[in-house]
Amino acid sequence: MKILVIGASGRVGTDLVEQLLADDHQVIGTTRQDKKLFDNDNYRQLDLDITAEKDAIAEQIEQDIDAVYFVAGSGGKDVLEVDLHGAVKTMQAVEDKGIKRYIMLSTVFSLDTSKWDTPGIADLKEYYICKHYADQWLVNDSTLDYTIVQAGALKERAGTGNITINDDNAGENAIADVAATLTAVLGANNTIKKVFSLHNGETTINEAIATL
Amino acid sequence: MKILVIGASGRVGTDLVEQLLADDHQVIGTTRQDKKLFDNDNYRQLDLDITAEKDAIAEQIEQDIDAVYFVAGSGGKDVLEVDLHGAVKTMQAVEDKGIKRYIMLSTVFSLDTSKWDTPGIADLKEYYICKHYADQWLVNDSTLDYTIVQAGALKERAGTGNITINDDNAGENAIADVAATLTAVLGANNTIKKVFSLHNGETTINEAIATL
Repeated sequence: MKILVIGASGRVGTDLVEQLLADDHQVIGTTRQDKKLFDNDNYRQLDLDITAEKDAIAEQIEQDIDAVYFVAGSGGKDVLEVDLHGAVKTMQAVEDKGIKRYIMLSTVFSLDTSKWDTPGIADLKEYYICKHYADQWLVNDSTLDYTIVQAGALKERAGTGNITINDDNAGENAIADVAATLTAVLGANNTIKKVFSLHNGETTINEAIATL
Repeated sequence: MKILVIGASGRVGTDLVEQLLADDHQVIGTTRQDKKLFDNDNYRQLDLDITAEKDAIAEQIEQDIDAVYFVAGSGGKDVLEVDLHGAVKTMQAVEDKGIKRYIMLSTVFSLDTSKWDTPGIADLKEYYICKHYADQWLVNDSTLDYTIVQAGALKERAGTGNITINDDNAGENAIADVAATLTAVLGANNTIKKVFSLHNGETTINEAIATL
């Protein structure tokens, strides 16, 4: 498949692109960096500014893309322009192109505001508000075949290949496991129009996703 | 009627409450200030924190209210918590109470992102993003009988009683005219489920509103 990864230079984006290339997909990665991120014939790179107008974003997206990942994030530096409005404009641009499949990396409890006084989330309130309205737009206002993957705290540790999904606690994630879950979602059509959370756990990724 | 004005101490809120009281309505005004804002038997005051959880907001809203105005604003100081998420939580709280009528003071071109590079708007981008997603929620995701009144730049000058609506330019507004327009909307059921912009103009407020 031909896949657009928005935010290819991020911590999850880097792992995700590597796994998609390993699966023989063609990947177009977006980043604001000049340097080519991956040395692979199946990889191309795009300097996509998601703070630009929606039509300018749409112009840079090729029509024959099969699926789009949104794994970009401002790291708290520009949550309104990137995590909220930038994200929604990519959804609208993708819709304009007639592309259907859109996989969003989000954050645990992004749609459940009753959990926002949990320690660790309360400090990230502005980020949470932005992810909330972006996810909400994707679910209620887009026509996309979305999946929203809500990760907990991202940790630079070895992946285990095992996760727990839709648990009531936030938990932590090895970044490699989040990337592997995002990759697995692409081949699992039962995840379309689904939102799920994950953290490190006991079930293999494919088994966990099959239960959705 | 019994009317809730969220943001009664603001520049528009003050004028609006005065006009509603002059029309013999019962008004409950919300403010974070302790001092009672209006000395009138038909006026009561509520210390409503819209950064609180939605259920806490709903608890403070009386069920027999006939209409709600949202004229609060953070003045750029807390756009995410007040102008976006705070506003949406009041919509949800009002819905929870079974109240239908909700009149939102918004800003010109809040829903038309193609106009956001206009001078004067570009400098207010974060405010605009927040008003955009709040208005968008009201239109697409609520079941309320809304009216969205999109004013241009608010000026402390004498009202004229005349406005132009849905013009292609932003323009300026006397605050008294915005308050008078908000008041007139309450009695004009043709404004339900409508969004309109206004600035100082040539048509009497009632005539202008009747064309919607």
